[in-house]
Amino acid sequence: MAAAQVWSVDPRTGRRREQVAAEATAGEVDGAVRAAHAARAQLADRAVRAAFLRTAAALLEKSRDALVETADAETALGPARLTGELARTCYQLRAFAGVVEEGAFLDVVIDHPDPAATPPVPDLRRYKIPLGVVAVYAASNFPFAFSVPGGDTASALAAGCPVVVKAHPDHPATSELVAAVLRAAAAEHGLDSAVLGLVHGFDAGLGLVRHPLVAAAGFTGSVRGGRALFDAAAARPAPIPFHGELGSLNPVVVTVAAAAERAAEIGAGLAGSMTLGTGQFCVKPGLVLVPAGEAGDRLVGALAEAVAEAPAGVLLDARMRENFLGGAAERAALDGVAAPVAPGAAEGQAVRPGFLTVPAARLTGPGAHDALLEECFGPLTVVARYTDPAEASAVLARLPGNLSATVHLSAEEAHGGGDGPRLLAELTPLAGRVLVNGWPTGVAVAPAQHHGGPYPATTSTSTSVGATAVERWLRPVTYQTTPEPLLPPELRDDNPLGLPRRVDGRPEHGRLEP
Amino acid sequence: MAAAQVWSVDPRTGRRREQVAAEATAGEVDGAVRAAHAARAQLADRAVRAAFLRTAAALLEKSRDALVETADAETALGPARLTGELARTCYQLRAFAGVVEEGAFLDVVIDHPDPAATPPVPDLRRYKIPLGVVAVYAASNFPFAFSVPGGDTASALAAGCPVVVKAHPDHPATSELVAAVLRAAAAEHGLDSAVLGLVHGFDAGLGLVRHPLVAAAGFTGSVRGGRALFDAAAARPAPIPFHGELGSLNPVVVTVAAAAERAAEIGAGLAGSMTLGTGQFCVKPGLVLVPAGEAGDRLVGALAEAVAEAPAGVLLDARMRENFLGGAAERAALDGVAAPVAPGAAEGQAVRPGFLTVPAARLTGPGAHDALLEECFGPLTVVARYTDPAEASAVLARLPGNLSATVHLSAEEAHGGGDGPRLLAELTPLAGRVLVNGWPTGVAVAPAQHHGGPYPATTSTSTSVGATAVERWLRPVTYQTTPEPLLPPELRDDNPLGLPRRVDGRPEHGRLEP
Repeated sequence: MAAAQVWSVDPRTGRRREQVAAEATAGEVDGAVRAAHAARAQLADRAVRAAFLRTAAALLEKSRDALVETADAETALGPARLTGELARTCYQLRAFAGVVEEGAFLDVVIDHPDPAATPPVPDLRRYKIPLGVVAVYAASNFPFAFSVPGGDTASALAAGCPVVVKAHPDHPATSELVAAVLRAAAAEHGLDSAVLGLVHGFDAGLGLVRHPLVAAAGFTGSVRGGRALFDAAAARPAPIPFHGELGSLNPVVVTVAAAAERAAEIGAGLAGSMTLGTGQFCVKPGLVLVPAGEAGDRLVGALAEAVAEAPAGVLLDARMRENFLGGAAERAALDGVAAPVAPGAAEGQAVRPGFLTVPAARLTGPGAHDALLEECFGPLTVVARYTDPAEASAVLARLPGNLSATVHLSAEEAHGGGDGPRLLAELTPLAGRVLVNGWPTGVAVAPAQHHGGPYPATTSTSTSVGATAVERWLRPVTYQTTPEPLLPPELRDDNPLGLPRRVDGRPEHGRLEP
Repeated sequence: MAAAQVWSVDPRTGRRREQVAAEATAGEVDGAVRAAHAARAQLADRAVRAAFLRTAAALLEKSRDALVETADAETALGPARLTGELARTCYQLRAFAGVVEEGAFLDVVIDHPDPAATPPVPDLRRYKIPLGVVAVYAASNFPFAFSVPGGDTASALAAGCPVVVKAHPDHPATSELVAAVLRAAAAEHGLDSAVLGLVHGFDAGLGLVRHPLVAAAGFTGSVRGGRALFDAAAARPAPIPFHGELGSLNPVVVTVAAAAERAAEIGAGLAGSMTLGTGQFCVKPGLVLVPAGEAGDRLVGALAEAVAEAPAGVLLDARMRENFLGGAAERAALDGVAAPVAPGAAEGQAVRPGFLTVPAARLTGPGAHDALLEECFGPLTVVARYTDPAEASAVLARLPGNLSATVHLSAEEAHGGGDGPRLLAELTPLAGRVLVNGWPTGVAVAPAQHHGGPYPATTSTSTSVGATAVERWLRPVTYQTTPEPLLPPELRDDNPLGLPRRVDGRPEHGRLEP
């Protein structure tokens, strides 16, 4: 049987653009993983890894026009957004190069012998080593930043792990182009192209997570797809870490006082955040608790005005469009739900953004509208009107885990008065990132970033954005009573690599710390 | 139906000592978890947690005689060993108190706004918060150090997580006594007794890992039991982290040159390590690669002499005794296997230590004796004789993950000559702790310790011993654009708690760093 063809499709027309590749056979998946595994020692040198990541960023920038053009043709995300996303992706590659160079991620801990301890402590030296081949499942909605050259790949390479990417079917041509650029960067540093493998196809993805030489996986996508792969990773004879970002409602709470102070601003801000990128962000605010009453009405009015003016947009593929239209219609049809600006089909393949309103009381108790507490991917949000703070809290208490949780406070509340502290305390258990008076869209690449959250936001406690994302692909190993000449240079007393480390309980700065 | 009774049994006689408790019903498990969950805020204050851990250590020491007496009656481990184990346990509780006080485990990272970044970085402040109620599955072989007051409990309480322990059926009376001591310590600091729950029974253990309010689990025990609980944790509607230590063969390689130099010393050392505690250590060396030829023969001779003189001992329970005798007999009966000192039944309930020898070639290729590559709990080790280094490497390449891997080198090899570097490189992928010229038994409690390893040694990349064990029970959360008065004190600019942290990429020492 011939392998299934992989086509690049224009979501603006639904038409096939070109055949990019064929779905990988089981043998091809095995070959990619074995080649990646065989190449792993080439990534042992941190200096080479850092240089590789920097060259990758430079070559991606050099190919920017072709990459953005192809990505736009496959995703309809538009050249402006894609140019920005590519810049973010290159910034991220360089940020991980910096992480590699500094070496704090190695978590070097050295304990010299202490015969007086109970039990006695021998010479112990611990650092972290790469896990092995990492499978990366690319996301649909960021063809650069959460795809082939994205945070999972960059952090895995930074850790010293070869990567095999399962391409997302919504941008196979972009995936191939980017993979070629990354391989060219690898070649500049004498690295085998197998340090960055690329496979297409659903079965290939499943085969990848089950492959004995795959040591860990990163995933960004849907709850359904991510959970299936998580389950496969856990069911292996030797289970592997599966760091999946699956789904998030990203609740927002607006206090009565905040609505009174800034109804129009909050309404307009919400419209901007929920329609950004045609609502195709994992951190899109999907449920907004707004007080009943006049100030809340003004907020909803401002939201309606702005959403009505927001442009229609084309979603990433036809199935998403179908799911969005179906999901929006299903929610809008629920008893007690209104659609001040109805989401729906627009010209061609486009969809119109919209939002729904519902009394918050309909989201709790028997017969609660649970569908409104599930993510609907696309430009739709649900505004739940609460009559008293306890009603809002009751809704929050029902939510599963989220990537983000946001509260809009009045100036007085932001200074610690009123309900501010209570709301922060209620939101923190719900999410990996808590925002005050902001919007969750726009995930900065920074050391303090955490892009993850309780399940189903993430299948682990890790982040997929920010410096600490590298921790996912490492495991500690301790050398006991190992003579200096046999120790890796990272663990030698004279610290030839100038690493930050902890020696006999005392932190020591490294050579390259800022 | 009445709940099953839980009996304390004397393994030296097989007789029941007393009825300690009843197996927890589903309702009792639910009650313990809910009470623990409700008490979690009481552990929010780090100073209180540290004081609680220190008081727990002091009260355990105060109850030492009664605890050791009861533990000895239930486990037959002997007062000397148990007194040492209790001292280790108290040392560990105090070590985690120190970890809590220093606060480095909070991983505080603060990024002030950087509008020039791509995308711009807003004010971001990240630290780690406790996951919630932790289920701890106690081990049989350490009634203190890996049981109710052991490393899992100590590290979870250090992290701020209430604990519900599933008691091991081999020492229920000790478990109850220790729990009472820990609760008395909790009471001294105004903490509810529910911060340390205790349940008995197999079904209770399964109910615990499935309980929606249980946020993570720690386990030390068998591959079979651990994998069943791991699978249950992964199959939950919301999966939870399961940090299980399951099983380990702990391979040892003796080079030709090392055998030539120190045959008698290595043979005697191996005998001491494999018979220690009647072989009931998870880090017992279970497979030893010894060169064929004269020097190796001398090593085996020294081993035989020492093992033959080692005392018989009583295993922890009758089932273990049965498994040990059956496992030893099954292995000894394999073609090509000899038993220079035959393990077997001794007087009363005791067993005699012993070891087997086999040509290393019988551990690879078609018809390989795979049973010899599986852990046999108790005082038995397998000595595989290799005729050339490639044969030893071929055996190592077949091994699953281990807690430890050891190599014995000659003086020249220990200085970097000969096969030393190659062997270190072959052992490192196999284990979480690599030893040179030592024995894996005796796991020091120290910051650089790593007690874990690739599956099945551990179901995650974490350690259950040493300061970093606390990381298992935490998750990061980032606050974005959150006004100072609403931030937890850990994340405020003026650092009122004197924590070590990373601000704008720059590490800052804390107040309590050594």
